[in-house]
This record gives sequence, C-alpha cells and structure tokens, in this order.
Amino acid sequence: MLHVNENYAKIKPTYLFAEIAHRVSAHLEANPGAKVIRLGIGDVTEPLCPAVIEAMHKAVDDEAGRAAFHGYGPEQGYAFLRDKIAKFDFQDRGIGIESDEILVSDGAKCDCGNIQELFAQDVKVAVGDPVYPVYVDTNTMAGRGDIALLPCTAANGFVPMPSDLPRGVQPDIVYLCYPNNPTGAVATRAQLQSWVDWANANKALILFDAAYEAFIRTPGIPHSIYECDGARSCAIEFRSYSKTAGFTGVRCGYTVVPKGLCAYAADGTSVELRPMWTRRQTTKFNGASYITQRGAEAIYTPEGQAQTKATIDFYLGNAKLMRKALEELGYTVAGGEDSPYLWVDVKGDSWEFFDRLLKRANIVTTPGAGFGKAGEGFIRISAFNSRENVIEAIERLKGVL
Amino acid sequence: MLHVNENYAKIKPTYLFAEIAHRVSAHLEANPGAKVIRLGIGDVTEPLCPAVIEAMHKAVDDEAGRAAFHGYGPEQGYAFLRDKIAKFDFQDRGIGIESDEILVSDGAKCDCGNIQELFAQDVKVAVGDPVYPVYVDTNTMAGRGDIALLPCTAANGFVPMPSDLPRGVQPDIVYLCYPNNPTGAVATRAQLQSWVDWANANKALILFDAAYEAFIRTPGIPHSIYECDGARSCAIEFRSYSKTAGFTGVRCGYTVVPKGLCAYAADGTSVELRPMWTRRQTTKFNGASYITQRGAEAIYTPEGQAQTKATIDFYLGNAKLMRKALEELGYTVAGGEDSPYLWVDVKGDSWEFFDRLLKRANIVTTPGAGFGKAGEGFIRISAFNSRENVIEAIERLKGVL
Repeated sequence: MLHVNENYAKIKPTYLFAEIAHRVSAHLEANPGAKVIRLGIGDVTEPLCPAVIEAMHKAVDDEAGRAAFHGYGPEQGYAFLRDKIAKFDFQDRGIGIESDEILVSDGAKCDCGNIQELFAQDVKVAVGDPVYPVYVDTNTMAGRGDIALLPCTAANGFVPMPSDLPRGVQPDIVYLCYPNNPTGAVATRAQLQSWVDWANANKALILFDAAYEAFIRTPGIPHSIYECDGARSCAIEFRSYSKTAGFTGVRCGYTVVPKGLCAYAADGTSVELRPMWTRRQTTKFNGASYITQRGAEAIYTPEGQAQTKATIDFYLGNAKLMRKALEELGYTVAGGEDSPYLWVDVKGDSWEFFDRLLKRANIVTTPGAGFGKAGEGFIRISAFNSRENVIEAIERLKGVL
Repeated sequence: MLHVNENYAKIKPTYLFAEIAHRVSAHLEANPGAKVIRLGIGDVTEPLCPAVIEAMHKAVDDEAGRAAFHGYGPEQGYAFLRDKIAKFDFQDRGIGIESDEILVSDGAKCDCGNIQELFAQDVKVAVGDPVYPVYVDTNTMAGRGDIALLPCTAANGFVPMPSDLPRGVQPDIVYLCYPNNPTGAVATRAQLQSWVDWANANKALILFDAAYEAFIRTPGIPHSIYECDGARSCAIEFRSYSKTAGFTGVRCGYTVVPKGLCAYAADGTSVELRPMWTRRQTTKFNGASYITQRGAEAIYTPEGQAQTKATIDFYLGNAKLMRKALEELGYTVAGGEDSPYLWVDVKGDSWEFFDRLLKRANIVTTPGAGFGKAGEGFIRISAFNSRENVIEAIERLKGVL
C-alpha cells in the first residue's frame, strides 16, 4: 500500500493570506466600489528596468535562430552570470567569493526550501519568531518537528542573539534573514559576527537569507554574511533578484556555498556541502531560464545598476513617508529604513487593528500574528506600491488613527 | 553537530556524460581539428518556433510597464496556460482532465525529482532498466535504497509488464516513461492498461513520464496514461515542453494530479495527493517565469501547433534516415519511429562500440550501459541534430561499420 509522507499533515495551514483575502472580499461585498489600497503585499509593483528588458528581448531573439540558440544550460547557471555576481556582489565589495561558489536558481524561495534536503532528518533547527514561513514548513515537511524559536522583540531590537536561544537548546542550523521579513530589522556587523562565532564554535550552520540586501543604505550594515570573519566555514547565503530588480515574475536568485564548508557524517568525518548542493541541483533542477539569466546579467551593467538602484530608492521613499506619518501619529515603527517592510507596534491585537484599517480606511495590511506568536501586536506594511497610493493611504491613516 | 543526509553518498556518481566528455576531449587532443558529430545528446538543436518567440517578446514588453506587469504568479501556473493545456492536450483528445488538475512548473525533471517527497520513506519503488537516472537518484537521495528493476529487453520489446516484476517484489510506485528514454520504445494501450489494472488492484501508483509524447505518430499509441480506464485513480503524469517545443533552455512543463487520486496514511485512511502536491509547490516553488508561460501558451495557437509539429516531423525525419541506414548495415534498431531516440543493438560491448565510432568516424553516441545493466550491448542515438550532420554521420557510419 502506498503510504504518504505524513509530515505534510503537520504543517500549519497558512491561513494568513487566505484569511486576509477572505476578509477583504467580505468588506468589498459589503462596500461595493470601495477603493482598497493594498499595503499588505510583498510583491513588487514597478516594472523591470530598461536594461533588463533590452537584454531579455535580445535573449528571446537568440532563441529564435539556430546559431545563438541555447538549450539545456548548466544547472549551476551560466558563467556569464556567475562571474558577474562574484565580481559585483562580492569581490568589488572586498568579499572573497568565487564564481564557482555561486549556484544560480529560479529563486531564493526554492533554494531556501530545498537546502534542508542536504541534512540529516534529526538536525535541530532554529528560526526567528516572527518568521518567513518557508523555513518552518519545509523542515516540518521533512519530519523536523521540534523547531526552536528565537523571539524577535522590541527588547532585542528584533535581532535575537545566540543568548536568546531557549535554555538547553543547541541548534545545528539557524536561519537568519536580514534585512528581515517581516520585521524590516537589520543586523549590525557585530551582531552577525556573534552568530558566526557561535556557529563555528558549535559546528553549526547559518542559513543566511539576504533577499532584501539591496535595500540597505546605512553605511556599515553588512550586505552579506561573508563580511564576517569565519563565515565561509559556517554559512550558506541566499540571494534573490525578486526585490532587487523586480524579478518576482521572471524568477532568478542564487545560493552561495563556499568551498570547504562542511557538515559531518554520523561517524564524525566531514562532508563538503558544495558538491552536495551541486548534486541536488543537477539531479532535481535543470537551470534557470536562459532569458531570465540574460536579464539578470543586465542588472550588473552600469545602466542596470543605476536603474535598479533608482527603483529601490523609490520604494525606500515610500517606506520613509509611511514611517514618518505613523510616527507622527504616535506609533513605534521598526524597519522601513534599510528594508521595504515597516513593522508597526499597534498597541493591541493585530487582527483587530487589521480590521479597523480595512473597515475605516479601506487599507489592507498584514497582521503580524500571521508570522508567528511574537508577531502579535504588530502589523507589517509593505512599501511596494505606487507613490500615489502611498500618499492616499497616509491621508486615510491620518483620518482614522 | 550538523549531520548530513548520508543517502547522498549512496548515489552512483553519473560518470556517463562526464566519461563521454573525457573520451571525446582525449580524442580531439589526439586528432586536432577532427569534425566530431554529436549524436549522443538529448538536447534539441532547432530554435523556438516563431509563434513562441512572438509571444515571449510580447511578454517581455508586459514586464516593461506598470499596467501589464506580472509579479508573483500562482505557483500552480497561470489559468491562461492551464486552461489551454486542459483543452488541447486532454479534452480535445477525449481525455477528462480539468485545468485545476494541472500544475505548471519549470520542467518535468524538477517534478519527476520532487514528486517522491509526497510519499513515506519506506515505499517500494520500481523503475525500468535501462532508465532515466533521475527516478533512481532522487529516491536514493531520499533514503529509498532498494529500488526494483524491470528489465527492458528485446524479448519484451523494451516494454516490461507487471509480470516482469522480480518474484516477491510488490512495488508501491512504478515509474513508466513512454515514448521511452533511452530505448525509444512506445507502449500500446493494452500494455498501459495492464499496468493501470495492476496498480488499481495493488493500491500502487504509476508515475507516468510523457516527456516525449509529441513524437508519437502511430495511430492508437496512447499519448497519455489517462487514455486507459481507471488511470485517474492510480496515476500522475508528467509533461514537458522541452522536446515538444524546444524549451530545454526556457524551462516549462507540467504535472497532472487527478482529483480524487489518493495514497494512504499508516492507519489506512486515504489522503488525496493533489492538495499535497499543491502544498509542495506553493511551499518550495514560486511558479514558472511569466515570459516562459506566455511562450508555452503560444504553442496552442494554430500557428504554434503547426510550427512545433513541423519541428518534430523534422527530428523524426532524422531518426528515420538513421534507422534505415543502420538497418541496412545489418543492425537491429528499436525506437526512432515515435521517438527521437534510436536504441541500437551493437552485438557487443557498448563502450567498445562507442570508442570505435568515435575513433574511426568522429561520431559521439551514448553507450547504453550508462543507463543501467540491461543497457549493455546497446547504444543510444539521438535525432536532435541538423539534417546536414545526420546525412554526414550516415555516410561515415557506412564507411566504418
């Protein structure tokens, strides 16, 4: 008899966005024609930049003729892209990462979800609370039920440290995400260095999700975990073009697995992780679209760099306006400075606050409780929107708060 | 201490294509300037058809402006594509598959590799021998070591039946691939019906890989497992645009999981698989590229249908020429009629024959032994090439065989 993987039944159904959709449609039914502004979404709203569009048109044309046609590419990604990533995202910033340590994929969500396959089923995992649900769900599906939570609170500036680990808990893997989704918090170099030192001392691994790295503007805030001493021996880093360059719909990201980074067999012998991840990708993945990779390459041209920076500046401008308005209304706001997300202390129940904004101001937010227990009392507001909507939303917030 | 998944160490390293590359480069070093013709590859050589190119240019333009911009799409694929698949690939052929039973992905390799996550670790798996390595490797990586082999031999026409199962072996999952990679064999309706009846009687599951379906020209040969009575209750089907429409570089495929198709919890209660696969995809995948999906949609226009059929006719023409030539040279050839692959009985050691063709004719093939023990004594020849190369290769074969 064909038995299912019963761990799938242990995932908490993500009612969050379904519940939001349900409440919004009920509201619209009761208030036909209400002009709802969605500040809950984590998806970009600005189009792809001209440099990327031009490169993708050219790549489509490559696929139209026998001479420049590209069929199966390397599962690890094309050298033309990996070389640019190594140079622009790392080496030019003084970080020693080589192109053969970079594996291109169709997105950081896939890589964040698949990476846990490399590890034994009984490894102990720790995540932040609140948290991007993929870290938790993918480990639950693999049978790792006992996931430790690191509370991200105002008291620790939403950046938990190794000392915040629950007593007696010694995780083998810690997921860290900075700039953080959902709190918008960033970690200082000293804070990340503490985690790196802890991981090296404990033969543990940091899975560092840097999907929002491009939003960092404050000098000194690390863009990569590899800015910390010793991170090459204890960290894997995930990057995404989704928010950096509006690639949510065209799908590209990459994962860095440094040479020499090891985990251990049961008998204690060390096993290098880069060949394992390469094996995973070559066996279960067939490379990101050639057209997409040519688009990603164009981000690293002078035009692409300027254009993507301008778009992120625009989103950061939205965030700044909303943060200022909310602070003037007396709210304590985290994030929104080196991040597209604002994490607003609503001084009460997050779903109640959600309902209040929806019913009185036609504004959709995301209740923090949906990201974990420690998210209760907060809402997440996203800066991915038009300026017009942001200004209108601020006016409405002033009217009802 | 961070323990690795030690099952990764149990995979047989696929030396096949690495070994081929090694021998070819040694040959080229010894014979500089030799004009090598590669008949070993499984990648397409013809460009994307004009209908697809046009649709992809339009989709790139959609991504260039705020009005038509598409960010995150549904992980299951856009309705515009799923609806066309349901109509053209199934309903118009009298097969009752609905669009919400179709989940679009970035390729059949990914889906074939990921599907095993839905099942318990101790399920018994059976595959053909020779076999597409992904079925074996992905189960091995998940800890399923004891994989039963169904020998595909001249005696059974390279189509093993349930009666070919080793004595005492009762698999829960059987991978079937028709038209087959690597043998090029096709299964009749009666043969597939036997497997469906066997699966329903034994509460087993058929994972049906139909990646080469578009090459079927012989009337009556099933294009889909769902042409068999009762297949909805025992089969998942994988489709790919890689060979159908030259999408090896742009990445799109889909998986069909019929409503009501169930596996079982340990306590015997049935668990529907479609929500589980949906959950897997929504958690660990973020949808195929919007541009790629628009390209795939264009395959279903009248122009796209005619253009993709013409390309497959061209490849089938290559196969026919090579099959005829090899038969005239006295070789027994399977495949190459409803398939891009020829499976040639070389009456001897497959690596020896490989070396002979490489050294004497500058022709690269794939030794059958690389696909499994039962592949020894055969070589695989691929029809994915230019007509010019095929004609030249035939002349050379006539000279040396």
